[in-house]
Amino acid sequence: AIVDAIERALSKTADSPERPSLLAGRRVIVTSGPTYEPIDPVRFIGNRSSGRQGHAIAQSAVGAGANVILVTGPVALPDPPGATVVHVETALEMQAAVAAALPADAFIAAAAVADWRVERVDNEKIKKGEGGAPTLRLVENPDILAEVAKMNKPRPAVVIGFAAETNHLVDNAKSKLLRKGCDFIIGNSVASGTTTFGGETNEVLLIGAEGVERWPSMSKAAVADRLVAKLAVELAKRS
Amino acid sequence: AIVDAIERALSKTADSPERPSLLAGRRVIVTSGPTYEPIDPVRFIGNRSSGRQGHAIAQSAVGAGANVILVTGPVALPDPPGATVVHVETALEMQAAVAAALPADAFIAAAAVADWRVERVDNEKIKKGEGGAPTLRLVENPDILAEVAKMNKPRPAVVIGFAAETNHLVDNAKSKLLRKGCDFIIGNSVASGTTTFGGETNEVLLIGAEGVERWPSMSKAAVADRLVAKLAVELAKRS
Repeated sequence: AIVDAIERALSKTADSPERPSLLAGRRVIVTSGPTYEPIDPVRFIGNRSSGRQGHAIAQSAVGAGANVILVTGPVALPDPPGATVVHVETALEMQAAVAAALPADAFIAAAAVADWRVERVDNEKIKKGEGGAPTLRLVENPDILAEVAKMNKPRPAVVIGFAAETNHLVDNAKSKLLRKGCDFIIGNSVASGTTTFGGETNEVLLIGAEGVERWPSMSKAAVADRLVAKLAVELAKRS
Repeated sequence: AIVDAIERALSKTADSPERPSLLAGRRVIVTSGPTYEPIDPVRFIGNRSSGRQGHAIAQSAVGAGANVILVTGPVALPDPPGATVVHVETALEMQAAVAAALPADAFIAAAAVADWRVERVDNEKIKKGEGGAPTLRLVENPDILAEVAKMNKPRPAVVIGFAAETNHLVDNAKSKLLRKGCDFIIGNSVASGTTTFGGETNEVLLIGAEGVERWPSMSKAAVADRLVAKLAVELAKRS
């Protein structure tokens, strides 16, 4: 019945002043943007996440009445009004900020966290011509999504990850769902020619234990509203 | 006498409608921003240049009446009105865009061009867990500043480079001036705690054959205006 009521309420548009407080009383942690992994004081390894989808989700969750903590890497976007925003650079900083923000009812990991960081970060700018081009040894970063999804006791009731893939999107996203232990994966293609990274629209799959939903191409704000609605339904079921 | 006239004219402020057309009829190529060197379709090696100083120089040169070609890496800044702007990502793309824009009266290399690129760029997103953390072999990028400074026949009459250093700024900048064969180097410190990268102000040295000028801390727009004035004087002397 709660689920029905939520689904009925969702037929109202997101901008409507009657939009229901689907997430009132819920604490939601959202991560967004890339991480930058330093090589030296000026150089870093980054990725092409703009943070638009994660920020849109934080904004939508605020609009739905949630207490939102947004942990974001370096982006060229304003802080979403109404969210508590923690700015970080590296995966290790993001891990610490998420740990500090827990416990929560939901964790939405939209950030494109670097899988690796540079093993030895130089304190001084590496100069050209000193022994030829350097080789960068990388080491694995913590897997923040899997850590939260697999944590004990105060695990968020709903944990949602993202899979940005250039190939075999459905298979890779399903495998990520199982491997990470999260409840849902939003899969999106970042093959060249897609608008996922940096663009305004997004065409995604929602993958859960019950199967795969293909959502039509829509604005990142619309993806966010639909995901927030889904989250409200799932939270109502689970807690 | 020309130099005196220019220097007298410079006592007028930059915003004054009477500001003289110091660079009228001059073609000036400016590079700005970082370059992004791809690792795979989503990851890249970048650097912390915001492009603010380079864009301010392009803007100031437009204001001084020059025909300005701005070749810029990825930045979160609007195109300076009145400049011809060429957007590039990598050092190789920047090299090609500069070659296409030549000849010119002046070349101002404010971009933080990556010294190295990744030897083998993956066409697919590198996945975690396939054989452990990867090692990135780098190869040297072309030295666009040195190439332009040392080119034959249609070499720009004035070539200006930038040196961002964390240590030994004056020595490193002087050494860069000689090694690259350019006419001036703007040296600035990017040690932690400085505002050079991403900030609004800049404290720089101007290093030329005649010695070192220390400019006081000022806005990047003011650094740009002073550099454009210097450029006008030098062009009047040399051509």
